[in-house]
Amino acid sequence: MKKTTYKTLIKKTFDEVCSLENNGDKASYIPELVKIDSNKFGVHITTVKSVKFGIGNYQEKFSIQSISKVFSLTLAYKILGEKLWNRVGVEPSGTAFNSLIQLEKDNGKPRNPFINSGAIVIADVLLSNLENPKEDLLDFIRNLSKNQDIQYNAKIAASEKSVSFRNIALCNLIKSLGNIENKPSDVLDFYFDICSLEATCEQLSELFIFLANNGSAMHNNSSIITKSQSKRINALMQTCGFYDESGEFAFKVGLPGKSGVGGGIIAIHPNKYAISVWSPKLNLKGNSYKGMLFLENFTTATTQSIF
Amino acid sequence: MKKTTYKTLIKKTFDEVCSLENNGDKASYIPELVKIDSNKFGVHITTVKSVKFGIGNYQEKFSIQSISKVFSLTLAYKILGEKLWNRVGVEPSGTAFNSLIQLEKDNGKPRNPFINSGAIVIADVLLSNLENPKEDLLDFIRNLSKNQDIQYNAKIAASEKSVSFRNIALCNLIKSLGNIENKPSDVLDFYFDICSLEATCEQLSELFIFLANNGSAMHNNSSIITKSQSKRINALMQTCGFYDESGEFAFKVGLPGKSGVGGGIIAIHPNKYAISVWSPKLNLKGNSYKGMLFLENFTTATTQSIF
Amino acid sequence: MKKTTYKTLIKKTFDEVCSLENNGDKASYIPELVKIDSNKFGVHITTVKSVKFGIGNYQEKFSIQSISKVFSLTLAYKILGEKLWNRVGVEPSGTAFNSLIQLEKDNGKPRNPFINSGAIVIADVLLSNLENPKEDLLDFIRNLSKNQDIQYNAKIAASEKSVSFRNIALCNLIKSLGNIENKPSDVLDFYFDICSLEATCEQLSELFIFLANNGSAMHNNSSIITKSQSKRINALMQTCGFYDESGEFAFKVGLPGKSGVGGGIIAIHPNKYAISVWSPKLNLKGNSYKGMLFLENFTTATTQSIF
Amino acid sequence: MKKTTYKTLIKKTFDEVCSLENNGDKASYIPELVKIDSNKFGVHITTVKSVKFGIGNYQEKFSIQSISKVFSLTLAYKILGEKLWNRVGVEPSGTAFNSLIQLEKDNGKPRNPFINSGAIVIADVLLSNLENPKEDLLDFIRNLSKNQDIQYNAKIAASEKSVSFRNIALCNLIKSLGNIENKPSDVLDFYFDICSLEATCEQLSELFIFLANNGSAMHNNSSIITKSQSKRINALMQTCGFYDESGEFAFKVGLPGKSGVGGGIIAIHPNKYAISVWSPKLNLKGNSYKGMLFLENFTTATTQSIF
Repeated sequence: MKKTTYKTLIKKTFDEVCSLENNGDKASYIPELVKIDSNKFGVHITTVKSVKFGIGNYQEKFSIQSISKVFSLTLAYKILGEKLWNRVGVEPSGTAFNSLIQLEKDNGKPRNPFINSGAIVIADVLLSNLENPKEDLLDFIRNLSKNQDIQYNAKIAASEKSVSFRNIALCNLIKSLGNIENKPSDVLDFYFDICSLEATCEQLSELFIFLANNGSAMHNNSSIITKSQSKRINALMQTCGFYDESGEFAFKVGLPGKSGVGGGIIAIHPNKYAISVWSPKLNLKGNSYKGMLFLENFTTATTQSIF
Repeated sequence: MKKTTYKTLIKKTFDEVCSLENNGDKASYIPELVKIDSNKFGVHITTVKSVKFGIGNYQEKFSIQSISKVFSLTLAYKILGEKLWNRVGVEPSGTAFNSLIQLEKDNGKPRNPFINSGAIVIADVLLSNLENPKEDLLDFIRNLSKNQDIQYNAKIAASEKSVSFRNIALCNLIKSLGNIENKPSDVLDFYFDICSLEATCEQLSELFIFLANNGSAMHNNSSIITKSQSKRINALMQTCGFYDESGEFAFKVGLPGKSGVGGGIIAIHPNKYAISVWSPKLNLKGNSYKGMLFLENFTTATTQSIF
Repeated sequence: MKKTTYKTLIKKTFDEVCSLENNGDKASYIPELVKIDSNKFGVHITTVKSVKFGIGNYQEKFSIQSISKVFSLTLAYKILGEKLWNRVGVEPSGTAFNSLIQLEKDNGKPRNPFINSGAIVIADVLLSNLENPKEDLLDFIRNLSKNQDIQYNAKIAASEKSVSFRNIALCNLIKSLGNIENKPSDVLDFYFDICSLEATCEQLSELFIFLANNGSAMHNNSSIITKSQSKRINALMQTCGFYDESGEFAFKVGLPGKSGVGGGIIAIHPNKYAISVWSPKLNLKGNSYKGMLFLENFTTATTQSIF
Repeated sequence: MKKTTYKTLIKKTFDEVCSLENNGDKASYIPELVKIDSNKFGVHITTVKSVKFGIGNYQEKFSIQSISKVFSLTLAYKILGEKLWNRVGVEPSGTAFNSLIQLEKDNGKPRNPFINSGAIVIADVLLSNLENPKEDLLDFIRNLSKNQDIQYNAKIAASEKSVSFRNIALCNLIKSLGNIENKPSDVLDFYFDICSLEATCEQLSELFIFLANNGSAMHNNSSIITKSQSKRINALMQTCGFYDESGEFAFKVGLPGKSGVGGGIIAIHPNKYAISVWSPKLNLKGNSYKGMLFLENFTTATTQSIF
């Protein structure tokens, strides 16, 4: 599609969704996130043909939360290669309800890297393999799109840490089952840092365009990960990116993607574009209410999905 | 790709996989399936540009088993439209281990139409909505590709029925939870008929090409289901088509597909082709050992997948 | 205690409980049971010193339902001895919620003989070991207390069978896991017969007095089972006799016992007495509301329990 | 029975069990416990008629571990009365396997006070209700039998703490579900102290005799808890005292009791005696191998149990 077509369809879809009621609730369990204005709504697209277009609050930073799990996974995959899958699986997890029992049955190997247990194991992998984990990961992310502005938010990290009894439980359970190498408190501190990353919609679609570009950065065409690795991360986002709503997202939107409880969503159309959406109110499954609607309507309008 | 390219890559990949050890075991629980020659190996591709090419035992009939669940789903979806999803979900199921507990928690609504419980509910939907369910479904399938040769195999149906205590358990559990309308024994008889369908690799790729063709038959260009419905069935195959190995298949092959315990697999590259493979020995997750290998190597060779 | 003491305490407790609101609901899933008058309330005690005393509707027959599982267990234990425990366990089951998953994990061996799955396995054991299972079991029960009046109720059996999808599911699941020897439909028919047994409170306390008498019948002092077997059945009733309320019953009443969804309860004070209660309305856990109250108040009044 | 009878039967049973192979393994997860000599074997009985008799290593201190959960429960029950059961249940827990999932389903309310999660909640209750929890609990225990020699073992507490990732997981999960009032690390420190208590077999049977004596201390006849509370703690030990082998213990031994991974067991015959056994090697369910055998043979020899 041409730039004008993308622009037109995004504008039209944005207006449609704006006019709808803003249902759902903001993530209530992280005190800092509750303070965000519920009416924020931004969208930005970056295409492999260098089209860039944003609308709404697309230049405002927000807490990308679990979306950052794709970055930590990408770096861990780059470092360990296929050996990574000895530590974490590639299968959808079924219901959250079963996550603890599943860890016990599978000897502490999480079903996939996008559920909390999996992302905690990925944080442990990075801790074991990086000199300065926190700085090195940030450098890696900033270099994805030459964007030095990306930052951790210490206040968000502290806010999540103060209420994170369940993540402490998860990390210690996995440790007891033998799949955490470092001290649980160190792993968790790093994990909370990762979750606290902030970006704008514009930055986010630029950071993610490498996954629509077969693993290569757009700004300098350097290979970040291999084409095969890039496809595989897309496959993982498709089957596991939306918690217990991953099937629904594949079904209705038809693109690989990842959501965060801050209300952000990134979606990838391989060989075409990366698109990001932000709207803080979440549906019952914990994904952005308006974000899901926007992407469903947008891919319907383009009549294009990977399926 | 051109016809010659497809042909070359299929031949090369077929030879590669032929030379490997034939690991795994045939499905042992259906007496009739044990009798099949383990060395059978066939492949056939049909493209939206009318390329057709087969190799090995691609013209020999085999028991397509769960692959037929896509046909019954397609007909039920065509009849009920989106209302169908009140009866069955669209989410991956996690482990088989949890299937019974999940049914209890979700009031008898199976996670998706491709696990046994879901396919049993689909059989119940067809029983309630068709005049002559067994004949009408067969007609529907035959008309997908104008192939009057497709048949149920009464011996296979009887063989499966004789040992199907677990499916009887599933169907009665769902009935007790209120999501089966007809008599369990009638639903199960129809379900076993559906599982007993036979086709060759050639026929299978022809029957499935409509899902690569946005829901329209190739032979007469008539719309079988809408473009949106076709995409959604592909999405479901992607996230749920390979039992507890669906993530792995998305990860390694990168195409929507469906396997059966008879050793068959169908995979769809939307807007490109439908490809079928048959090799009776199954891996530990119940999917064709050589079939999985062939498709992984084939999409690697083409360097194309939906991701 | 003397006869007059038992009589006084039973009368007093009966009057107390009569004056309370009759909470709970009758078992709704068996159509025939819904027709019973909710206000029925009867109690009868039989002691090892031949005290017999009843009050209220103690001479009216009711459906003893799961209480009969103690009879079938006793006969199966008498026949197979300790080998019986290869087929069924002796541990409390935790929540009903987990019953299906537990069967899968334990290869079809139910946790204990008093949950439905366990009683179905016991019915299968009797089918395999008795010439005329239905008649032989009835004879065995009648001879416990020389009471020829005990009968199956064919109407109740048929009523339960007509709605028993969950029991069909259980029996077929166990069959699929290898722990049912006979045809599931034969096992279930016998199981429904066993559940359909009827007795009065008076008859019930007479039938059960052998368990307070170290396994010997009172009327002719013949040994029905050994002292050790009798103690073990009491232990099983103590830990498993009240579904998910077994701990509560041990805690509040302090006697081994067994309840049925017909609203009956039998409790045993070893070396002292057997006491039966009947009141059709059930609490949320499926045990007689007034029956539980009566027994709690009665053992409190006697200040005696096995603890 | 007379003193001479108890003495004779204990001697005879002790010799029998001594002559058997010492199967099983010492608890391996607490480093300090692995150092204990596997051949230690001691028994001591204290009766309500002041009979006292010991044999083997009955005057040697060992780590009583989970047996101490009865002491903390008793004190918490004394303080809160029946309100305690709002925080923790009285039902057997089914398999350990399900413990985490059960906590989620029951909003953080453990099934009973003797599984780890329940004992952690009891520790939290004591932390909230005692001035100096560690000292106050120790005083309470010492006063049960006027024994000032009972001590915590700081080395054992530290050893367990160093490897207690699973207990940290449990405590934080319960905290996340709202059923822990204090800081998880404080609760756990106190919990590890409680588990580290040491006593000899002789001391143990003296500390527990109040539960055979309707809640009153033997040395000064003062009431520690009410008769009803004492019966209820016995009932809880009967249904929940031996992890996933509670039914088996009721079945074979027929007495309320509690075991610890240090290889100790205490058993109560209400109105008769308290008997303690110590032998460090554990069976597959985590209970003392020789301890279980001794108690089964002993109650068989006495031909007396509560059933």
